[in-house]
Amino acid sequence: MASNTLFLLPGDGIGTEIMAEVEKLIAHLNGTGATDFSYESGLVGGCAYDAHGVAISEADMEKALAADAVIFGAVGGPKWDDVPYDVRPEAGLLRLRKDLGLFANLRPAICYSALADASSLKKELVEGLDILIVRELTGGVYFGEPKEITDLGNGQKRAIDTQVYESYEIDRIARVAFDLAMTRGKKVHSADKKNVMKSGVLWDEVVKQAGKDYPQIDLHHILADNAAMQLVRNPKQFDVMVTDNLFGDILSDAAAMLTGSLGMLPSASLGAPDPATGKRKALYEPVHGSAPDIAGQGIANPIAMFASFAMALRYSFGMVDLATKLETAISDVLEDGLRTGDIMQTGCRKVTTGEMGDAIIAKL
Amino acid sequence: MASNTLFLLPGDGIGTEIMAEVEKLIAHLNGTGATDFSYESGLVGGCAYDAHGVAISEADMEKALAADAVIFGAVGGPKWDDVPYDVRPEAGLLRLRKDLGLFANLRPAICYSALADASSLKKELVEGLDILIVRELTGGVYFGEPKEITDLGNGQKRAIDTQVYESYEIDRIARVAFDLAMTRGKKVHSADKKNVMKSGVLWDEVVKQAGKDYPQIDLHHILADNAAMQLVRNPKQFDVMVTDNLFGDILSDAAAMLTGSLGMLPSASLGAPDPATGKRKALYEPVHGSAPDIAGQGIANPIAMFASFAMALRYSFGMVDLATKLETAISDVLEDGLRTGDIMQTGCRKVTTGEMGDAIIAKL
Ligand SMILES: CC(C)[C@H](C(=O)O)[C@@H](O)C(=O)O
Ligand SMILES: CC(C)[C@H](C(=O)O)[C@@H](O)C(=O)O
Repeated sequence: MASNTLFLLPGDGIGTEIMAEVEKLIAHLNGTGATDFSYESGLVGGCAYDAHGVAISEADMEKALAADAVIFGAVGGPKWDDVPYDVRPEAGLLRLRKDLGLFANLRPAICYSALADASSLKKELVEGLDILIVRELTGGVYFGEPKEITDLGNGQKRAIDTQVYESYEIDRIARVAFDLAMTRGKKVHSADKKNVMKSGVLWDEVVKQAGKDYPQIDLHHILADNAAMQLVRNPKQFDVMVTDNLFGDILSDAAAMLTGSLGMLPSASLGAPDPATGKRKALYEPVHGSAPDIAGQGIANPIAMFASFAMALRYSFGMVDLATKLETAISDVLEDGLRTGDIMQTGCRKVTTGEMGDAIIAKL
Repeated sequence: MASNTLFLLPGDGIGTEIMAEVEKLIAHLNGTGATDFSYESGLVGGCAYDAHGVAISEADMEKALAADAVIFGAVGGPKWDDVPYDVRPEAGLLRLRKDLGLFANLRPAICYSALADASSLKKELVEGLDILIVRELTGGVYFGEPKEITDLGNGQKRAIDTQVYESYEIDRIARVAFDLAMTRGKKVHSADKKNVMKSGVLWDEVVKQAGKDYPQIDLHHILADNAAMQLVRNPKQFDVMVTDNLFGDILSDAAAMLTGSLGMLPSASLGAPDPATGKRKALYEPVHGSAPDIAGQGIANPIAMFASFAMALRYSFGMVDLATKLETAISDVLEDGLRTGDIMQTGCRKVTTGEMGDAIIAKL
């Protein structure tokens, strides 16, 4: 088996603690011969700023570019609230997405049945929920130029951000959504604000055009504001939702919270397949943040990180069975009643980050 | 008493049916001598397009500019899905907002206690909910230039929308939010994406600066994606939320849906006070849309329209007691068990649009 390379970027806050569990997991998988991963670790976010004065160093960017997959923890914390805009922790993540060309962000919002009670929504509305939000990740208002603040004098300033999309960017993300929907419920909702935004008009036009190549897909248009409503009203009406960078940011967070499993949700950010090798650049990260309030206490929930690793196994290494095995192991420990503090329920057993990691690995 | 002028714009779909109830209400109020409203009606949206080829005629724009308050129904429907972008139904509403200078959009998300069960959220999370979303309405990506689609050849197009904010636009909406919060829970959350958008950086800077004039206000910053999450997780943590045009569009819809009272929620869009008269231009509209699927059947819920009229009484005419009386009448008919189809519950009595309007008027 060829060696597969990973680049681990734990980042800040609980990022380091949950990444330590990933290292245990890799050691276990390599030990059993199931995988042959080699890896290095680097710095991103606040810790990179502390060490190098930037949110990610050039050396670490090169390692990220060279690796088969980047495993990312979380960035940010109050310590870096006032660092200059260009070197704020998030800049490291945004640069990784952009320079690795990770245009396709897959954010599953699933409800672990053991946790259906934890949702703020009524149980019957979320039990069995399985939505996949496909978010465009390298375009839109995140990266468009001009993006600047101008001093107008008289104490007045003008701030500008620019939402830009070209047809090809919309086409490729739509096709990712359609391809994934073909392996699921074959239903896609495309969300935009075409009643107000020209980028929405183009978005809708290109998505519908691409949809013609997928006659089996049941394609719906939905306005982004209505999508936010419908997610709250009846999330199970959705299968796959495809949307732009900014709407994807907001709608996927709302969807994640609905499941009651926020601390448990993974994400994958994928580039285009290399024409020669067929390989995609990829980064895997939990949806939750760096949780500075509980960092360093050994109580963070490593499940979203493990589930992100499962996505890496599936999407970067084609190890679909192993990915499913890992996901089943996660469900099993939940069914066994193990809980970290964030998801603690009466009648369950409260465990540390390390105990949760060990329990999942033991199930494998 | 000086005559107060209203301009009624029923619009499309159920807009005409719910506006007919407003006419009954005005006749009643004028009849009792409580008010002295004179009004005219005009066309906006699809019906204006059918009549004049535009989403609102110049003549009607002039009447809207001259009136003390515009009472707006709803616009749009499948019939006009393919009309040219510049004359689509929404363009009428957007022009009204812009030309009347209605920068402050007040969107209360309250949960009528009789309807707490209707929310998709657990009852204890929404019972008694009373959030006020203050949305900037004449700036941001809705109106910034360039806003265009360019043909690049080779079947490729590029779409651009521009998010622009100047300090004064942020300052004045922040002060509206602070002033309103002073009459309520004195807590304001300001939502932006300052970790990604320069307009967010400026937004936060200006809001914090304005906040210094309101030392009693408990001011919080929240990222817009986290705001979407927190609204779903625990909406009662919020009192007033101030945000930009686009985030306000999405977050207020999510908040409205949470209450289980979506068909019941009003909104007010206010301009700056005239330096000479102290009067503000204003438009009042329900949060729900034109509901073409049920239009013409006499079953639409007029409550959001009535609640919008109550906001007009309060904000445009200083008739605070009468506004409260109307709002109480709405709650009372709900407590009595009257329901239009959209909010029907077992054990309640299903009524038509007209019956609901009559019942509320009878309570006055
Ligand atoms: C950290 C931040 C820049 C990022 C985003 O806005 O994309 C985050 O919210 C996310 O969704 O991954
Ligand atoms: C109809 C549409 C243009 C409008 C908006 O996007 O502002 C609507 O969604 C609203 O929230 O009032």
